[in-house]
Amino acid sequence: MSLPPSTGTLLFDRIVIIGAGLIGSSLARAIRPLRLTRSLTLADADARVIKTATRLHLADECTVDLQAAVMDADLVILATPVGSFTDIVQTIASHLKAGTILTDVGSVKHSVAAAVVPLLPPQVAYVPGHPIAGTEFSGPEAGFAELFRGRWCVLTPLPETPLPAVARVQELWEAIGAIVTVMTPEHHDRVLALTSHLPTLIAFSAVNTAADLGEHIQSEVLQFSAGGFRGFTRLAAQDPVMWRDIFLANRDAVLEQLHLLQEDLAALTRAIRWGDAAMLEERFARARAIRRGLND
Amino acid sequence: MSLPPSTGTLLFDRIVIIGAGLIGSSLARAIRPLRLTRSLTLADADARVIKTATRLHLADECTVDLQAAVMDADLVILATPVGSFTDIVQTIASHLKAGTILTDVGSVKHSVAAAVVPLLPPQVAYVPGHPIAGTEFSGPEAGFAELFRGRWCVLTPLPETPLPAVARVQELWEAIGAIVTVMTPEHHDRVLALTSHLPTLIAFSAVNTAADLGEHIQSEVLQFSAGGFRGFTRLAAQDPVMWRDIFLANRDAVLEQLHLLQEDLAALTRAIRWGDAAMLEERFARARAIRRGLND
Repeated sequence: MSLPPSTGTLLFDRIVIIGAGLIGSSLARAIRPLRLTRSLTLADADARVIKTATRLHLADECTVDLQAAVMDADLVILATPVGSFTDIVQTIASHLKAGTILTDVGSVKHSVAAAVVPLLPPQVAYVPGHPIAGTEFSGPEAGFAELFRGRWCVLTPLPETPLPAVARVQELWEAIGAIVTVMTPEHHDRVLALTSHLPTLIAFSAVNTAADLGEHIQSEVLQFSAGGFRGFTRLAAQDPVMWRDIFLANRDAVLEQLHLLQEDLAALTRAIRWGDAAMLEERFARARAIRRGLND
Repeated sequence: MSLPPSTGTLLFDRIVIIGAGLIGSSLARAIRPLRLTRSLTLADADARVIKTATRLHLADECTVDLQAAVMDADLVILATPVGSFTDIVQTIASHLKAGTILTDVGSVKHSVAAAVVPLLPPQVAYVPGHPIAGTEFSGPEAGFAELFRGRWCVLTPLPETPLPAVARVQELWEAIGAIVTVMTPEHHDRVLALTSHLPTLIAFSAVNTAADLGEHIQSEVLQFSAGGFRGFTRLAAQDPVMWRDIFLANRDAVLEQLHLLQEDLAALTRAIRWGDAAMLEERFARARAIRRGLND
């Protein structure tokens, strides 16, 4: 695991981050003090967000003008909900200079890349990426420089992505403390469907189920949620638009994992209903053994 | 919230804890240094567990003889999986003196009380209890004195439970730092089904679903489980026998909540399949708003 140097190497001349939310503003906070770029621009179509980013001095320039922002950029990082990528790339594509590297931080890779690639000019290299980091908070104030330290960043280059572009994006992530790994977009989406998308969907659903109860029991459910439910409420506090886009963009993998889970839940439900103690104990012991394979 | 006094008041002459696992050994560790009892006995039918408890000096006496242990006790605390309560109470009932208070720490209250009460001699007061505290670890080594500090302990007295007995059990919990609340057994079971039992069932199921994948993807699922899945693996690492008993003892409430969740999941599944962005965003925003009602 590489730790950020106290003062970084200059990796890019001009980095532009589009989207000044939790991830985009954390990237700005991590990149700027290390001097990894000569100039850093933070662009966001939302004027209120840009006002906040300006007040927080998150970049050399904060702007709502995406087209002006990306001119002369050698690295553009998309850090908005994945559902907005097509619109944004359509807006900026003709303003990207030859040699620009485009990367992103979206939680879904396959369908997103398929939509973005045809929109790009031929001399722009697209390096799809996904830092597995986040909190339940969102917006420019929620970011912090250490968000990516010691966390995985998955890069999912396409067959046509030039390797030097992948290496440069990897260098940036490593400079801010992330551990980079490479896999195909399809594989990424399948793994993340299970490790992230499915748990979050269930969390949203469980919290809504609690909300459907009467108000009296609802407040108690929250009060006594020291157990599993509190973790669920934390997952369910994440940005609704970001997650809407994730489920729509990773539909097939999420539906597949959801189906597998439903089958297993059905078997457990049946065991509970008919009092099959041996089956329950066996399944729970198996799950525990898997956990023991983890370090913390 | 009451904090434990640096030196406690003598509350009982002779406390006996049956079950020297995470909860029982934590109780012993919390009670003994505060001198809340003249003598503390830790009893467990498992000789290996008692050997460990003895080595750790967890009580004045550590024994496998439950019947001898409870003689002359004025408080007996059951801290074993709820499925063992009937057997244990059958074993000890005739050895309990008049005036003994029996309490427990089981995660299910209604069906457990219904099974235990008919087995008790008439002069023994039963105060069902449930401290909402725990970790993913189990066994006598896993306990620690601070486990209950600042955590809820729910007491669910029955119509026939004498109020002074409830008050004395409450005093004990408050002396070791817990915050006591009182509700009916049925209400407790319904609330806990949603806040604790259902999330844990889903966690067991999700971890098993991951285990059903090939070994290669399984290791990646664990590796990249920084998101929701890691919380699931923590829940799924809990004691299989304890949880087997909880699901069997709280069957009706768990099945009811599971059914409600399945309905909600079905609606979300449909929205994902058909691309209903507005519905997804609305449901996720609602869940987030509920979370905002919590303090941390």
